[in-house]
Amino acid sequence: MSRPVLEFWYEFASTYSYLSAMRIEREAEAAGIEIAWRPFLLGPIFAAQGWTTSPFNLYPAKGRYMWRDMEREAAALGLPCRKPEPFPQNSLLAARVALLAAGHPWEPTFVKAVYRAEFGEGRDISDPATVREILLHLGLDADRILREAQTDANKARLRAQCDEARERGIFGAPSFITPDGEMFWGNDRLDRALAWAARRGSAG
Amino acid sequence: MSRPVLEFWYEFASTYSYLSAMRIEREAEAAGIEIAWRPFLLGPIFAAQGWTTSPFNLYPAKGRYMWRDMEREAAALGLPCRKPEPFPQNSLLAARVALLAAGHPWEPTFVKAVYRAEFGEGRDISDPATVREILLHLGLDADRILREAQTDANKARLRAQCDEARERGIFGAPSFITPDGEMFWGNDRLDRALAWAARRGSAG
Repeated sequence: MSRPVLEFWYEFASTYSYLSAMRIEREAEAAGIEIAWRPFLLGPIFAAQGWTTSPFNLYPAKGRYMWRDMEREAAALGLPCRKPEPFPQNSLLAARVALLAAGHPWEPTFVKAVYRAEFGEGRDISDPATVREILLHLGLDADRILREAQTDANKARLRAQCDEARERGIFGAPSFITPDGEMFWGNDRLDRALAWAARRGSAG
Repeated sequence: MSRPVLEFWYEFASTYSYLSAMRIEREAEAAGIEIAWRPFLLGPIFAAQGWTTSPFNLYPAKGRYMWRDMEREAAALGLPCRKPEPFPQNSLLAARVALLAAGHPWEPTFVKAVYRAEFGEGRDISDPATVREILLHLGLDADRILREAQTDANKARLRAQCDEARERGIFGAPSFITPDGEMFWGNDRLDRALAWAARRGSAG
């Protein structure tokens, strides 16, 4: 019997998506849930509501708090936390590569390596050299993957995935969607989302 | 020996403050923490960043999600959840009365009764008749309290408390501040705030 699938919608520029990405595999395993990794971009969604950058930059008090909260929450998970410059990072290339990775064994490893570079080491993930190095470290054909990531077909797939996110009501990251369509927003709701998927997912 | 004090900054118009208000006493008791109830208004803080109403109204996808999340979170606490009309409610009168209640035995009872009327029953707490009825149910001299709440001295006290909130970096509600000045934002952080206060508060 197949396990219920929880969709994990993440944005590489999102700080709290980092926390979820680093812990979701072990928590999903413990709950008996399969994870579908769904990269998307918040930029178009934010732009549609008039935001030109992250709300953590637009609202400085909220931004200062968020970085302090990230320090605490990362420490509680035993994770490093470092602010990349600039913040937010342009996550377009990383998202295109992650989309290519879908269903391949290297998908979660790649996603976590990008997050660790960005928010654990403060590196610039918009730089193709960073993404290339991560792919090489995973023993992959980095140049072929980077080429494929930039094809028109793959660019269109990412646009379609972003459209789907907006159409399904996603407004922030991370977001989790259960098999019966229940949405949970934020790293703080991962446990609830897994429990919901475990309780109702098997009925579908 | 006195117990560490956690400041609980709440806004009567705030949905997640409702959840915190209803559970903070028993959780604080279990953690060995004293609660200082600090009513304030988010309106001036939101206005300063260009918001004319609640972000849950300004951003409809976020608003729809919040009400669904409130239903789930209230149910998990065994609490009713009903959206008042209009939302957000004007919380000025209730906040002035709550400020008068500070340190009196009826303070937590009054605060919880207002929240229950507003988000449990969907009633209009901006109506002085609602606040009066709540005070009468608590066996209090409602008319005297309502008169005192509207004195210039009490109005000035509430303004000063709102200024203090902004100066201390508060940007949303509920917010919790520990004896050593650590801030936690959101009902989801109440447990962390209590644990922090218990661990470090006694050192002060």
